[in-house]
Amino acid sequence: MAARVPPLSMKKGGGAVSSAAAGLAGTSIGVIGLGIMGGAMAEALLATGHAVCGYDVAAHARQRLKNTGGRPLASSDAVAASAEVVITSLASVAALDDVVSRIVGVGRDRLRTRILIETSTLPLGDKMRAMAALRRVGIATLDCPVSGTAVRMKEGAWTIFASGSRAALRRILPLLHVFTRNVPYVGAYGNGTKMKLIANHLVAIYNVAAAESLTFARKMGLDPRGVLALFGPSPVVGNGVLRLRGAQMVARKYAPATMKVEVWQKDMKVIGDMARAVDCPVPLFASCIPIYNAAMAQGLAVADTASVHEVLAGMAGIATAQSRDG
Amino acid sequence: MAARVPPLSMKKGGGAVSSAAAGLAGTSIGVIGLGIMGGAMAEALLATGHAVCGYDVAAHARQRLKNTGGRPLASSDAVAASAEVVITSLASVAALDDVVSRIVGVGRDRLRTRILIETSTLPLGDKMRAMAALRRVGIATLDCPVSGTAVRMKEGAWTIFASGSRAALRRILPLLHVFTRNVPYVGAYGNGTKMKLIANHLVAIYNVAAAESLTFARKMGLDPRGVLALFGPSPVVGNGVLRLRGAQMVARKYAPATMKVEVWQKDMKVIGDMARAVDCPVPLFASCIPIYNAAMAQGLAVADTASVHEVLAGMAGIATAQSRDG
Repeated sequence: MAARVPPLSMKKGGGAVSSAAAGLAGTSIGVIGLGIMGGAMAEALLATGHAVCGYDVAAHARQRLKNTGGRPLASSDAVAASAEVVITSLASVAALDDVVSRIVGVGRDRLRTRILIETSTLPLGDKMRAMAALRRVGIATLDCPVSGTAVRMKEGAWTIFASGSRAALRRILPLLHVFTRNVPYVGAYGNGTKMKLIANHLVAIYNVAAAESLTFARKMGLDPRGVLALFGPSPVVGNGVLRLRGAQMVARKYAPATMKVEVWQKDMKVIGDMARAVDCPVPLFASCIPIYNAAMAQGLAVADTASVHEVLAGMAGIATAQSRDG
Repeated sequence: MAARVPPLSMKKGGGAVSSAAAGLAGTSIGVIGLGIMGGAMAEALLATGHAVCGYDVAAHARQRLKNTGGRPLASSDAVAASAEVVITSLASVAALDDVVSRIVGVGRDRLRTRILIETSTLPLGDKMRAMAALRRVGIATLDCPVSGTAVRMKEGAWTIFASGSRAALRRILPLLHVFTRNVPYVGAYGNGTKMKLIANHLVAIYNVAAAESLTFARKMGLDPRGVLALFGPSPVVGNGVLRLRGAQMVARKYAPATMKVEVWQKDMKVIGDMARAVDCPVPLFASCIPIYNAAMAQGLAVADTASVHEVLAGMAGIATAQSRDG
């Protein structure tokens, strides 16, 4: 169906590494979108000796960049006029459209950006449109969604699904290696987003499965701590979602959130929209949707997605946790 | 809710170990139910120098025991009149009821069995009834369901969820260690079955999730081999079910089965019945039921449960595998 693409890099290893010595020392880097993820990437680049400019619509995010040694600029177009390589980390299609139109509007004479690394989780159609528009002004775009939370970057636990031009990727790979050594090359532009959707589809299910499992355990009179201790490390059913989210479910504490329900709802929509676009029945994923919707309805919007355990526990008649979101 | 019970033994390590030297050398052991699992246990005991008698309703199973050096007997009661420790590995409640009534009927004067290790996956209520009946004739019953297939015993990959009297368990632990070093003690009689249901509940979901994920990957034009290579070992979403069953789904070959759909349907029913018995909503598990039922309907009864991938692929309009069950 699709050609198998051998990984360009799937090395594993811990944490950030200096890349200033790896041939990109003189490259000016811009980060557009300085939220939790973009801000973390900017800081990691600064910490490894790179010059970083950036922009965010939020003044406090620009201030944070300044505080950590970066150079905040007044707009996306100012970043594109300054940085050879731009990383985008954006929360919505509207933001991506705005950034792209401003970069395109800079004009070839002032435009300095040659490679744009799009790291957001956004619908593929919108990412394709962005790539085409940027190509017309000579920018090579890479589709490189990130799997992992900002906190976990320091543990070297991110995976970046790199897709697009191999030549462009080779050029900027040392930058991505500042964030993680796990940068599998997954093929043509867009495959990165597809792989991210595969990962998120499983995470969506595994998280509700963990919540259902621990609710079932409680209803049978088992100690949920013992259940998690037994199955979290199991070579058969153990996985990172069960271990990370399961610990919050056992404690019934969902703050601080590694992924807020309200943010995750955007990712759920992207998965569901893609499934519809490619005519794929996803009955298991579909049965998770009402559980996340219920979490929103029950005041858990800013709680971690592990809080779906409260939805199922509530359905099961288990008394509400004393302090379920913090 | 329930007291946390520290594990008596959760050591990990490879394969079978000799226990003949560990204080049970003179103990006569009986195995009732010499199917795939019971037969494998009998052979492992024989291979480590134990004297093993046994019974199965099927003549070929008794012959197999004889061929490997064991002593087949004519009935369950004959085993109970001969062996101090009996292991039961049975496929149905009817079989368990029959075995228990025959053992009880032996009479105290002839009855030699003191400890019975019930390793089957059967409804908890039936296991409780068996334990009570056996207690009246002086037999201590342990509820010790096995997680793992016969093939995987040799790799040391079984987990035995041990529950019941600690004193009785200590006495027979060297026997269980012949099968695996992974023998967590999970508390009062019945907790073993509860833990097994927790494991099976997750396996039921993870298997369909893997099938749905790889179908989604195919529909998006991704190479399913690349997807499995990326996510099978992932510290976030990777797990044993995805790796083992995913490989069959990628190859679209479901024989030889590690777990046949028709056998798994019994385990599905036990999970669903328990959920109803304890009033636990299990929406995710419930959405898996029609997928397994469809596999039965589509001629996949003796194929591996990984064949639910064919159900979802068929729904998704993906052409039938040339040889999907062998």
